[in-house]
Amino acid sequence: MKVVGQELPRVEVLEKVTGQSLFGADVRLGSPFLFGKVLRSPHAHARIKNIDTKRAERLKGVKAVVTARDLPKVLYGRFISDEEYFTSTKVRTVGDKIAAVAAVDEATAEEALELIKVDYEVLPSMTDPLEAMREGAPLIHENYEEYKALPMVKGRKGNVCLHKQTIIGDLERGFQEADRIFEHRFFVPMVHQTYIEPHTVLAKVDASGKVTVWLPTQAQFPIRAAIAGIFKLPLIKVRVIPTEIGGGFGGKNSPTIEPAAVALAMKSRMPVQIVMSRAEDFQCANPRHSCHLHYKTGVKLDGTIVAREVESVMGTGGYYGSGGVIALRVDALACGPYRIPNVKIDNIIVYTNTASCGPYRAPAGTQITFASESQIDIIAHELGIDPVEMRLKNAVENGDTNPSIGRLENVNAKETLRKAADASGWGSTPRRKNHGRGIALGQWFIGGQPSSAGVKLNEDGTVTIITGVVDLSGTATSLAQIVAEVLGVRLDDVQIRTADSDVAPHSTISAGSQALRSMGSAAKYAAEEARKQIKEVAADKLEADANDLVLEDNRVFVKGTPEKGLSLGQVAQLSMTHKRGPIISANSYSQFPEQPAYSAHVADIEVDPETGNIKILRYVASQDVGRAINPLSVRGQIQGAIMQGLGQALSEGCFFKNGKMQNAGFLDYKIFSSLDAPNVEVHLVEREDNNGPFGAKGVGEPPIMPPVALIANAVYDAVGVRIYDLPITPEKIVRAIQEKDKG
Amino acid sequence: MKVVGQELPRVEVLEKVTGQSLFGADVRLGSPFLFGKVLRSPHAHARIKNIDTKRAERLKGVKAVVTARDLPKVLYGRFISDEEYFTSTKVRTVGDKIAAVAAVDEATAEEALELIKVDYEVLPSMTDPLEAMREGAPLIHENYEEYKALPMVKGRKGNVCLHKQTIIGDLERGFQEADRIFEHRFFVPMVHQTYIEPHTVLAKVDASGKVTVWLPTQAQFPIRAAIAGIFKLPLIKVRVIPTEIGGGFGGKNSPTIEPAAVALAMKSRMPVQIVMSRAEDFQCANPRHSCHLHYKTGVKLDGTIVAREVESVMGTGGYYGSGGVIALRVDALACGPYRIPNVKIDNIIVYTNTASCGPYRAPAGTQITFASESQIDIIAHELGIDPVEMRLKNAVENGDTNPSIGRLENVNAKETLRKAADASGWGSTPRRKNHGRGIALGQWFIGGQPSSAGVKLNEDGTVTIITGVVDLSGTATSLAQIVAEVLGVRLDDVQIRTADSDVAPHSTISAGSQALRSMGSAAKYAAEEARKQIKEVAADKLEADANDLVLEDNRVFVKGTPEKGLSLGQVAQLSMTHKRGPIISANSYSQFPEQPAYSAHVADIEVDPETGNIKILRYVASQDVGRAINPLSVRGQIQGAIMQGLGQALSEGCFFKNGKMQNAGFLDYKIFSSLDAPNVEVHLVEREDNNGPFGAKGVGEPPIMPPVALIANAVYDAVGVRIYDLPITPEKIVRAIQEKDKG
Repeated sequence: MKVVGQELPRVEVLEKVTGQSLFGADVRLGSPFLFGKVLRSPHAHARIKNIDTKRAERLKGVKAVVTARDLPKVLYGRFISDEEYFTSTKVRTVGDKIAAVAAVDEATAEEALELIKVDYEVLPSMTDPLEAMREGAPLIHENYEEYKALPMVKGRKGNVCLHKQTIIGDLERGFQEADRIFEHRFFVPMVHQTYIEPHTVLAKVDASGKVTVWLPTQAQFPIRAAIAGIFKLPLIKVRVIPTEIGGGFGGKNSPTIEPAAVALAMKSRMPVQIVMSRAEDFQCANPRHSCHLHYKTGVKLDGTIVAREVESVMGTGGYYGSGGVIALRVDALACGPYRIPNVKIDNIIVYTNTASCGPYRAPAGTQITFASESQIDIIAHELGIDPVEMRLKNAVENGDTNPSIGRLENVNAKETLRKAADASGWGSTPRRKNHGRGIALGQWFIGGQPSSAGVKLNEDGTVTIITGVVDLSGTATSLAQIVAEVLGVRLDDVQIRTADSDVAPHSTISAGSQALRSMGSAAKYAAEEARKQIKEVAADKLEADANDLVLEDNRVFVKGTPEKGLSLGQVAQLSMTHKRGPIISANSYSQFPEQPAYSAHVADIEVDPETGNIKILRYVASQDVGRAINPLSVRGQIQGAIMQGLGQALSEGCFFKNGKMQNAGFLDYKIFSSLDAPNVEVHLVEREDNNGPFGAKGVGEPPIMPPVALIANAVYDAVGVRIYDLPITPEKIVRAIQEKDKG
Repeated sequence: MKVVGQELPRVEVLEKVTGQSLFGADVRLGSPFLFGKVLRSPHAHARIKNIDTKRAERLKGVKAVVTARDLPKVLYGRFISDEEYFTSTKVRTVGDKIAAVAAVDEATAEEALELIKVDYEVLPSMTDPLEAMREGAPLIHENYEEYKALPMVKGRKGNVCLHKQTIIGDLERGFQEADRIFEHRFFVPMVHQTYIEPHTVLAKVDASGKVTVWLPTQAQFPIRAAIAGIFKLPLIKVRVIPTEIGGGFGGKNSPTIEPAAVALAMKSRMPVQIVMSRAEDFQCANPRHSCHLHYKTGVKLDGTIVAREVESVMGTGGYYGSGGVIALRVDALACGPYRIPNVKIDNIIVYTNTASCGPYRAPAGTQITFASESQIDIIAHELGIDPVEMRLKNAVENGDTNPSIGRLENVNAKETLRKAADASGWGSTPRRKNHGRGIALGQWFIGGQPSSAGVKLNEDGTVTIITGVVDLSGTATSLAQIVAEVLGVRLDDVQIRTADSDVAPHSTISAGSQALRSMGSAAKYAAEEARKQIKEVAADKLEADANDLVLEDNRVFVKGTPEKGLSLGQVAQLSMTHKRGPIISANSYSQFPEQPAYSAHVADIEVDPETGNIKILRYVASQDVGRAINPLSVRGQIQGAIMQGLGQALSEGCFFKNGKMQNAGFLDYKIFSSLDAPNVEVHLVEREDNNGPFGAKGVGEPPIMPPVALIANAVYDAVGVRIYDLPITPEKIVRAIQEKDKG
């Protein structure tokens, strides 16, 4: 192959590095627009007794005030059903939306918010899911039975909104067969996606009632559907124009402020922009679920795992949000990449008085992997088995069954683990005091979503690909490579355009590690159809059989007789008068089954036992990528995910007081920055997947999972203490060392 | 049919009437832009001795000055070959571009223009083509032989840049067979397209060198090709974003100020907007060619035309422009819609010192039709034959041959003429003093150009059509009707989007009366492909044969069993998991042969012999439209064309002094306004054309041709004087009456 597999810089790199890319808040129209602001609840739990917007409405410069009165009581999206867009009777989180205002400037909008008088009856609140689960805890949702749209109703009790139980084999017998049983509890706090660009939107409603929104989103088609659903419009009356996006990581898959901006634009008859502040975004967006995990695992003395019981208790925040998806993930992940014959999983989602949680890069993945990969490490040490050997002994293979996914294929768990172990020199390095080495293996499941793509041959033989998939992580470049490969053209002669929802072919969201697989398949099919058309036109001109033609070096020619050929520019010109007409194709792809991808990491660290500080000395990652369409992008994805995983391992977490986030800013919420970043050595396991385009697997999510457990394992290896709750802060390490020394 | 043939308001009507549509000069970016101005020659003919831009460059606020030094010597487009974009050695028209400046505001840009010092050696100039043709006339282009790209080189002599001769039959014998020979000379002055919106463009060049231009254009793909050609860029490095367009009429088919704006944007590294002033647009755009016509026609006493000799001398202005296309038209039109066995056409294009001429709605059509339909009227009167009978006697029929087009098909000349005559009560109205009635029959040829369209089914069953064709005259609505008809959906459930050149399927230009035929064919093919996909998905669900399914009322169901069916929304949802994937199609159409369409007009007028004022009392038009996809749009096109035709008949014309247009503004250049407009009764001749979608012919150009001759004929009928040069002003009528009374 000539283009696929090449390390190529991103096609949009120059605009990005020169600051020319247009991000959400940069959008300007040819006409003035209003500034929108959302009035949010200051209380985590309270009854609303009265909302008075009169004074705000009378303020000079205020053009519209909207509340629940202006929006129909809607159940929108697939998963959300217990949430009014604007709250009118009860607030359940700090940040619940009560009203929104649009004014001629930001200061007036802010003043108007202050003039809206809301009478609250404050209720007791809970942010921890275990607290919210307790008998007698105040009910966050009283009228539970009204929520008809919730996908799973079994197990509702008190604030528990979902309790799903999965049983495989015979758990009791499994534990009876075990030589030893290990039981541990773990906790992972809520973390935020910490994209650089907060949520922002500009909404406009034209004379015909057509709504246009400009926003950074990972999911233009679902956003279109959500807005259409809320405002009861046909899809063709809503246009979503995705701007460049300053990070999403799952946090920009669903609407937040968009309906407020649209309602304000409808009422004021002017365009309205809302830009969320950083604090608002931290407090009110859709962070990763906090999770309490109880892991009980039965093993034979040789390390064979025979039984596992898992209880996962996740706080979903004030509303169910995307809990359903998360719940499915827990089932798929609870056993880790290991073959366990007897399993019971209790998958519990609990309402709490925090922001409604949502997807974040590998939803549920970091939480479960922290527990699962910590515990297997503990067990290996307890049994005196090498952690790599322990994992290899139990690792899944093709044909094994996963509790949620079913039969597994394209399994490369062992290969990926061995590659990381080999590359890091596992087992061969001499021990040094306070130095430790950890390993962790992550398993993630990646499917594919319906997508379409268009390909056209321009009059000069250059090629354009049209999709609606937002480029978050280099997908545009990789898609261009796929099409260039199929059509035998140079990458420089291919342009890729992300169109808006009006014009774009139906596209998958840029999430779930499947954007490139899904859209890449559609683009490949479309390119193959264009190739067929090119051959058809060329065959007539060359008086050759279309089947004998090949495309290479921007030409089409008779196989074995390269001089008997045409440039693609000539073909494009010929097509104009050929019965075929201009060469263009659109093609679609519907779905792949969800199948696994693996990521194994090894880190060498040094722990300062006095301060608890951790220094990462070396970081080796291997990943099961199927085929790296663009190895440069793939490595970037892996390195980026590791940075986020290390942040969650070492420093991140949302901390609450009375439901109010106490560290809602980057000064207090410490992410892993480039200054903290170790050099990550990446090793790719390339065994073609029989589903993805050119054998590609998804790569974005798997590598965020190992770091959390890896650091815990390495800390244990270095200083002999085990941290069971994230983040693994210096304070916790020092305290644990002190307690170990005492004990 | 349910949607095709319905009288429907335009889909974009609400945006238009509320002023929300975004026209060219309204475009704003999220960042500042510069104001561009073009320095143009004040002389019609001069040698440039020196250009000094230094003082302008030093002016505060000036960000770029460009001249011929900054642009490669280019031959761009298909037809232009004798023109430098910026002139460096010789100016040939008032308005030739010498330099352009970009500055922070308009005043500074204007001041900078004044600071550019150009030394001229002024040469004698000519604006009339006969004057320019004379032996010894000063040469406008000295180095003729260098113009390699001119399509036709035969007949170059002096300022004559093209002399094409067409001979059919035996002219000499033809005239020998004639009982009488008539010889007349006619003159049609240069007229301007008088679109409401002058030329304007905003150009931006991004960090990767990609050029984006926003502009009102009829021809986004040719504009893209022209800019790419001039700046030697691949097509994917140029993006044309067509805005709404405030009229084009052929005047916005090719680049004018766009390359200047791009060159300024490249040099200043900022976006640059240029808005042409009204005077600049009148003086420097691409008006309709002035034309001297010599018509010599031989007839039998029974009215049969046996021979015709035509000499057409057109002034092309300073450059060849689109003369080639015009020349072909002269050949096709010279005989009018009549069967003439012996013909000689001398088709002469002459350089003059005026703006380079271009296409205007039915290029060459009004000029030739004025002569041809005036002369046939003269002959009918002279022979004592009713003008309608005279025309019917000679009118072409299927299978007749045209000197340029060849064999004619879909000919409805007689039907169209009869319909106008019948509707007007031709021959039945009593004569009143100074009242007159005229008739004229126009013939125009309409082909088709390569086009592609995309159709997608949205998740809720609504339908989107994607094209790149700019809507000038209701084509968008008609395209939506075609697709709605094919897919059996309501028009309200169809949206049509004109995308930009990056994203849009290759599209025809909105000119030549073929936009709807060409794009309609592509859209119909694409809709038919989408219908096939819908049936495929539905057939699997319904367990039916796809061939037994019908699409109607937004559903697909088994023929004869409407209850066994699915809504299109259900099909869209099913497609997401069906192997087919989301329903989307792209399809192309390449070309139709050029074939005729007819337009016959009858007007009753009253002439005041004292003032020469003409009052139009009644106006009846019939037109051969094949099938009216949207009769409301078709009538609008016909009425609009008649207004423009009446303007050219009665008042329009560019008048020059030393090459400078003396009436370059709407105060002095009188167009036919709504206050002048008669009520036009429109009668459609609907005989399906075997080429166009649903049998549609093109409708935009044919109706502009008859009015010019019609008024001349009616004036003759009213007061017995014949005007041979347009416009037919009150002064000319009064003078002709005075001369007749004298004679």
